[in-house]
Amino acid sequence: MSVQGLSINLATVRPQFGFAAAVDACLAQGITAIAPWRDQVEAIGLDAAARIVEANGIQITGYCRGGMFPATDPIGLAAAIDDNKRAIDEAAALGADCLIMVVGGLPGTSKDIDAARAMVADGLAAVLPYARACKVPLAIEPLHPMYAGDRACVNTLEQALDLCDALGAGMGVAIDVYHTWWDPKLRSQIARAGRKGQILAHHICDWLIPTRDLLLDRGMMGDGVINLKLIRADIEQAGFHGAQEVEIFSSENWWKRPGEEVIATCIERYRTVC
Amino acid sequence: MSVQGLSINLATVRPQFGFAAAVDACLAQGITAIAPWRDQVEAIGLDAAARIVEANGIQITGYCRGGMFPATDPIGLAAAIDDNKRAIDEAAALGADCLIMVVGGLPGTSKDIDAARAMVADGLAAVLPYARACKVPLAIEPLHPMYAGDRACVNTLEQALDLCDALGAGMGVAIDVYHTWWDPKLRSQIARAGRKGQILAHHICDWLIPTRDLLLDRGMMGDGVINLKLIRADIEQAGFHGAQEVEIFSSENWWKRPGEEVIATCIERYRTVC
Repeated sequence: MSVQGLSINLATVRPQFGFAAAVDACLAQGITAIAPWRDQVEAIGLDAAARIVEANGIQITGYCRGGMFPATDPIGLAAAIDDNKRAIDEAAALGADCLIMVVGGLPGTSKDIDAARAMVADGLAAVLPYARACKVPLAIEPLHPMYAGDRACVNTLEQALDLCDALGAGMGVAIDVYHTWWDPKLRSQIARAGRKGQILAHHICDWLIPTRDLLLDRGMMGDGVINLKLIRADIEQAGFHGAQEVEIFSSENWWKRPGEEVIATCIERYRTVC
Repeated sequence: MSVQGLSINLATVRPQFGFAAAVDACLAQGITAIAPWRDQVEAIGLDAAARIVEANGIQITGYCRGGMFPATDPIGLAAAIDDNKRAIDEAAALGADCLIMVVGGLPGTSKDIDAARAMVADGLAAVLPYARACKVPLAIEPLHPMYAGDRACVNTLEQALDLCDALGAGMGVAIDVYHTWWDPKLRSQIARAGRKGQILAHHICDWLIPTRDLLLDRGMMGDGVINLKLIRADIEQAGFHGAQEVEIFSSENWWKRPGEEVIATCIERYRTVC
């Protein structure tokens, strides 16, 4: 039986499965959409991964990830730009709907977040023409403010959309409920993104109370405090009807369970609480 | 030797000192401004605390804390309002510059953050006339978005100022760098707050990388990534010249050191990095 509208970000089953086994496990439960990470693709090889995708009619709802622009010197920024172009090539080879951009935090010992944000804008502008030529949309994923220092200095949907507007065609956003659910401007900014067709991806999981680790304690949908149905309704109202992509980093819970159980739980929760 | 412009929030030395000992330890190093918590005042008794404050010419830069409005039923909200009036009485008795409002998160098992925010607005409106009569300004402290679920559903300075504008005279904000440093709109919202004289307090500490605990791993000024001098310059530019109040929750580091050392370090860092 096919499960329409649900995608599994392969970080969700990272310890359990490599790329090929993850695809098999998803297909076995009727899921035909995934979002792989670069290291997972590299482990099997880009050509082999692309063949698996093609042969099985898999949709790649996003390729994780580009970004990480801020650097301590121009050489570092240039290297990041080159690496992003390779990520765009890979996304194109896989036929990904978009390349997810986790833009990067403060470089080195910097305390200058304005400068980091400027480097992000410069880096995106530098790779965007290449992305356009490859027909790979770039999806800025605003990360939760608790990652502003070390992972991404784009921290609200409004800020991400301001960047998209400044950069122009080929840019959009990935709206992950984990990063954005708290935002008092979430609803208005989802509507804003919809008006320009800038919503490229919708990621789901849940915010646990208590959250025991800043990075690796995301919850399964329904186990936390996020009103998933409401956010989904806003996103559909804004014109995005693509898959909901489950992305859960959970070192002490879901990463310790059998991958088949994790996928089955994603499906059950997708049908009941999303 | 007196240390002008520095206040010690007594949470910073919570395990080391009760109220009276904390005041003694601050005075011994020339600090004449503090911000106590309700439980610390209750432990010694309000009258005794007020006498110590009066006798030593102590400035109370803020009283911690009111708020926590959202409740699962009207009885709960009414109880919160009553409790906030008692906190206002205590703040008045101590001559506090303001009552810090940590507004509360989602009540019970609720996933409705809009409803929680509405209860916060209702609760503040209900206590504001009493606060005005007692001449105790109410300082909404927007908390970091990682506390939206369990501690405070007011999570940006912009959101707090929107609330202040809606509520009117007697309302303002406490700007804590820990909660706000990441915000792309921080500078513009500090300027906005300044135009209406709404800045009531300025709290400092630092954001550590990595941060090992969501609540109890705040850093000493200078040990993290926050550009403290820049934020202070913006706050002074906006017209607030009150004390910088050190508020550090640090279960594995500063709470384990001698209180005198913690206070001495606050002074040294205040003079060098703030």
